Amino acid sequence: MATLRNNIPEKTIERLSEYRRTLLMCHRQGITHVFSHILAGMHGITAVQVRRDLMLIGFSSDTKKGYDVKVLIEFINDILDSEEPMKIGVIGMGHLGQAITKYFNGKGLKLRITAAFDIDPAKVGTTIDDIPCYHLDELEEVVANDDISIIVVSAPTKVAAQLVVPIINAGIKGVLNFTSASLNFPQGIVVENYDITTILEKVAYFVKENEENSNN
Amino acid sequence: MATLRNNIPEKTIERLSEYRRTLLMCHRQGITHVFSHILAGMHGITAVQVRRDLMLIGFSSDTKKGYDVKVLIEFINDILDSEEPMKIGVIGMGHLGQAITKYFNGKGLKLRITAAFDIDPAKVGTTIDDIPCYHLDELEEVVANDDISIIVVSAPTKVAAQLVVPIINAGIKGVLNFTSASLNFPQGIVVENYDITTILEKVAYFVKENEENSNN
Repeated sequence: MATLRNNIPEKTIERLSEYRRTLLMCHRQGITHVFSHILAGMHGITAVQVRRDLMLIGFSSDTKKGYDVKVLIEFINDILDSEEPMKIGVIGMGHLGQAITKYFNGKGLKLRITAAFDIDPAKVGTTIDDIPCYHLDELEEVVANDDISIIVVSAPTKVAAQLVVPIINAGIKGVLNFTSASLNFPQGIVVENYDITTILEKVAYFVKENEENSNN
Repeated sequence: MATLRNNIPEKTIERLSEYRRTLLMCHRQGITHVFSHILAGMHGITAVQVRRDLMLIGFSSDTKKGYDVKVLIEFINDILDSEEPMKIGVIGMGHLGQAITKYFNGKGLKLRITAAFDIDPAKVGTTIDDIPCYHLDELEEVVANDDISIIVVSAPTKVAAQLVVPIINAGIKGVLNFTSASLNFPQGIVVENYDITTILEKVAYFVKENEENSNN
């Protein structure tokens, strides 16, 4: 199994996370089995894609009844989740940082935001949505004490580059960067640059393409 | 040229948007030329990737001096941007909706958020970051009056599914969905599902993988 699970494509990992959320919703509604084409329909993809993803992780279904929802959830848990909940710190508690912490709080995920960092004296030392907010200077200490593995960067773009060295020094393993600055880290640190402008420009581009094609 | 520009891969479109932001920054700093390996380094990718992306859009460089920053910006503008600024509406003015509008305001992009929608009586009828906030019931009318093409969904996940029909009826061409619900729209409407949980779970997965590999 360990061999099978290595080298799962990034896109499959994303879809497993999405399937799990849908399956949890099905489970809450008392649905015990789901066919691949139903799961596919709920995600706007093909049944072939769903079956390929689940084959990649070594999961097979009862073809008559479809996938067992509960078993599949546990199977995906086993792949995506660490044994211990992974802890997350958020740098920058403006609207975006607060949206993210609010979003995660009480969701029962295996990921948990345990600390926030800012430099605004009005925020430092307070608790925002049950998360203590520390001064950025305390990053290294808090990361060590709380055993934080992942940092979400929701600070203003213009200060993003200054955060790289403190994040490295704190021993962080993964970074989710929401700013418009593409951040580079040494190998061994997972980085996902996730800029909202880029995605919105992409949507706009394909809207424009559709319009041009329909005018031809 | 028109032929060349068709079928540009999604990932290339994303990178063009990112290159442009970097090039604009270079331009503001008075840098007139940039080599592919420098541009690549700033984005944590290879020079081959940069050259391939720019070849795909039919742009070539002076090999001695590198890419002409100003010319390349205009070249990318021509591909990504519509002639008229494209207008965007945001549904859901909680922290995330406000983060997005704040982020876009005054950025000088060809994309412009012109309207927000909510159902909270405390927000409807007010102006948030210079954007008028309407009741969701007014969606169709405001989209028509303002000529809005794209909707950003930053409403709570539990109401996301109810937004699909009103968005279709309003004649929207593109949707950027930030909720955890995967939204399906008829062909011809561009949809980007952009769930923060998914990306954070992906980062966590690769952090876990790195740890397991380094323990072996």
